[in-house]
Amino acid sequence: MSGFDYRAVLSAAATPSPGTAPPRMPPATIQYQFAGGKPDPLSFPYDGLAAATARVMAEDGAEALTYGDAQGFRPLRELIAKKYRHFEQLEVSPDQIVVTNGSSDALRLIVEALVDPGDTVLVEAPTFLGTLRTIAGHRADIVGVPMDDDGILVDRLEQIIQREKAQGKRVKLLYTIPTFQNPGGSTMPLARRRALLEVVAREGVVVMEDDAYGDLRAEGEFVPSLFALDRHGLVARTGTMSKILGAGLRIGWLVAQPPLVRAVLSVKYDGGTSPFTSRVVHAYMAEHLEEHVEELIAVYRAKRDAMLEALEEHVGRERGAGWLRPQGGFFIWVRLPDNCDPAKLVDACAARGVSYVPGPAFYHNWQQDWPEAARYIRLAFSYEQPDAIRAGIAQLGRAIVEASR
Amino acid sequence: MSGFDYRAVLSAAATPSPGTAPPRMPPATIQYQFAGGKPDPLSFPYDGLAAATARVMAEDGAEALTYGDAQGFRPLRELIAKKYRHFEQLEVSPDQIVVTNGSSDALRLIVEALVDPGDTVLVEAPTFLGTLRTIAGHRADIVGVPMDDDGILVDRLEQIIQREKAQGKRVKLLYTIPTFQNPGGSTMPLARRRALLEVVAREGVVVMEDDAYGDLRAEGEFVPSLFALDRHGLVARTGTMSKILGAGLRIGWLVAQPPLVRAVLSVKYDGGTSPFTSRVVHAYMAEHLEEHVEELIAVYRAKRDAMLEALEEHVGRERGAGWLRPQGGFFIWVRLPDNCDPAKLVDACAARGVSYVPGPAFYHNWQQDWPEAARYIRLAFSYEQPDAIRAGIAQLGRAIVEASR
Repeated sequence: MSGFDYRAVLSAAATPSPGTAPPRMPPATIQYQFAGGKPDPLSFPYDGLAAATARVMAEDGAEALTYGDAQGFRPLRELIAKKYRHFEQLEVSPDQIVVTNGSSDALRLIVEALVDPGDTVLVEAPTFLGTLRTIAGHRADIVGVPMDDDGILVDRLEQIIQREKAQGKRVKLLYTIPTFQNPGGSTMPLARRRALLEVVAREGVVVMEDDAYGDLRAEGEFVPSLFALDRHGLVARTGTMSKILGAGLRIGWLVAQPPLVRAVLSVKYDGGTSPFTSRVVHAYMAEHLEEHVEELIAVYRAKRDAMLEALEEHVGRERGAGWLRPQGGFFIWVRLPDNCDPAKLVDACAARGVSYVPGPAFYHNWQQDWPEAARYIRLAFSYEQPDAIRAGIAQLGRAIVEASR
Repeated sequence: MSGFDYRAVLSAAATPSPGTAPPRMPPATIQYQFAGGKPDPLSFPYDGLAAATARVMAEDGAEALTYGDAQGFRPLRELIAKKYRHFEQLEVSPDQIVVTNGSSDALRLIVEALVDPGDTVLVEAPTFLGTLRTIAGHRADIVGVPMDDDGILVDRLEQIIQREKAQGKRVKLLYTIPTFQNPGGSTMPLARRRALLEVVAREGVVVMEDDAYGDLRAEGEFVPSLFALDRHGLVARTGTMSKILGAGLRIGWLVAQPPLVRAVLSVKYDGGTSPFTSRVVHAYMAEHLEEHVEELIAVYRAKRDAMLEALEEHVGRERGAGWLRPQGGFFIWVRLPDNCDPAKLVDACAARGVSYVPGPAFYHNWQQDWPEAARYIRLAFSYEQPDAIRAGIAQLGRAIVEASR
């Protein structure tokens, strides 16, 4: 056995690209949690979920506690279809829906079904860091596409696809968050959505549309999803109960045309997404969906407004600082003043109990391709209550002064 | 847009090998469910889980409903460690445990962390069909290793590894179910476990030890797991609450030495296995684990005995028919009489309301490599009550006569 080293076996394992490892806040005592996109714990229906569980155990316990259908509990898929009808006037069949362990699982399944190592996957720059990890874990080549305040730049998207193809690459997938983008906060207008769909249809690229926050619109007019506008079956849209019920339940889904649904089901071997939780979520949401979402819209609008006002008061827009006013979602993407040292800001905020996610976390290969990433931070207004948001942003303002030359 | 076909994009997707698609029972009315390894619905603690959920919502609801640690709820990992201490006198740190969405998710994560397309993965022939799908989905080359009544043949294992290596292949993983094997029912004796571990240590192959049924021993002496015997950190063992609490909860885990734990965590991007269900399972099992498992052992022993007796009475051991007496688990692997036509048997059983899984489902590439697979069927005794088991096996006996020349 001498000379044998199991680490050699393990080192041959697939390892995600180091380019996506985000800088982290020091684990100091956090008083103001602006980092993760955690839902508001005061909004969780604790008693309602306990009652729903008791009802499920009494009425449908045997099915709740055994293996389920790979596509997911059908009444829950019907409820999701009803949700689309109610909030978006969008008709979807339950057969087009696959229930997953949160939308991160849906995103993983799409990547697993479609992407081979070495394929190109296009992402918005910046984008949600969790999906960057998933894509990197499948050893695709990640290429960022620049954005403006209206989302991804469609002409640049087409140029990049053509450049990749000219280099012999297969461009399989575009990952986009067109509504209340994470982290940027932008919402892509209708005309740009249509233009984007023309490009991907011309070039033959599947779109992974991440829609975790769409129901939580604080202001402005509803814009139909890429999935709703698509006429070529090229869009797989994901959704989740994480932001409108509770992330700890891990119930998400994808909705797509049948070929994409079949492709995803062909790689889903998980005994069915939790039959237990699926039934509990269904039992609660079947009675409370509309009113609960209405409540949450009011809750998160108040938090967003508190953070926007506090940013104007305590951070301001001098020396290049600024942010986009998001129409909904959980996040504000703040550009720091030009004279602020991002590394010093991490320490200054840690000392004041303020957590956030530094900009580089949201880019693949930021040092080489997106050096301006360091000038940004993402603030989540979802978790803290409005008073804490105001107090925390006041601390952030002081920390920025301390970290500035 | 003319000439564009999204199917061309999708057809470039990864597709699992067709060799693993099992023949299926017709979806006729099933009176005697001997197909899936479903746990006994009368054994589920419905009221206990409803009460546990109410307690979790009242005491720890905010954490139960938000994102969790990727490695899993620590008190649940401590409970799993306690379970190993109680039932196996095995000391494991909670840091060596990763909670997953059922053990199928643990198996997937191990494959995802270690296996590249084209690598060789060794499996028992026959083996659990769900894992065959997972491995095929990662486009590994699956090579079956023959077994006898004591499990995998270790000398054949070594020959096959050496043959694969001589052909320039990387042999990354051996997937084995050494205790109450699925579907075969065999339990590997201690001496063979040690011999197997010597081979994999010499050859540098990681072992994925699937232990879904180990707690449910109806008779015979406990044999330590490969994980417990391993001295080289080469074994990742999986476990599950599916058989001892409820499969619908989708709570499983893996336990391994730190390098394998890190490898698995490096590809786990799922927002943490359900913080909600993890807490519910913990709240119930912390108070009921030992007594509940004791009850289940009695339940499944009675079912196994009913099926074994009925097989002797209604099927018998003539013309090559036979089966191994499993010391535990959920399954009996029956060799059909030589003159029985397996295709006719499917129809005859469907007409009599008896479901089972035909042998070929448990082999990769059975037509080419394992033609004897067609002579076997797997019967699960876990789901039906003893009287229904006796009645169903009587029907099976008549169906075998009908299907015989």
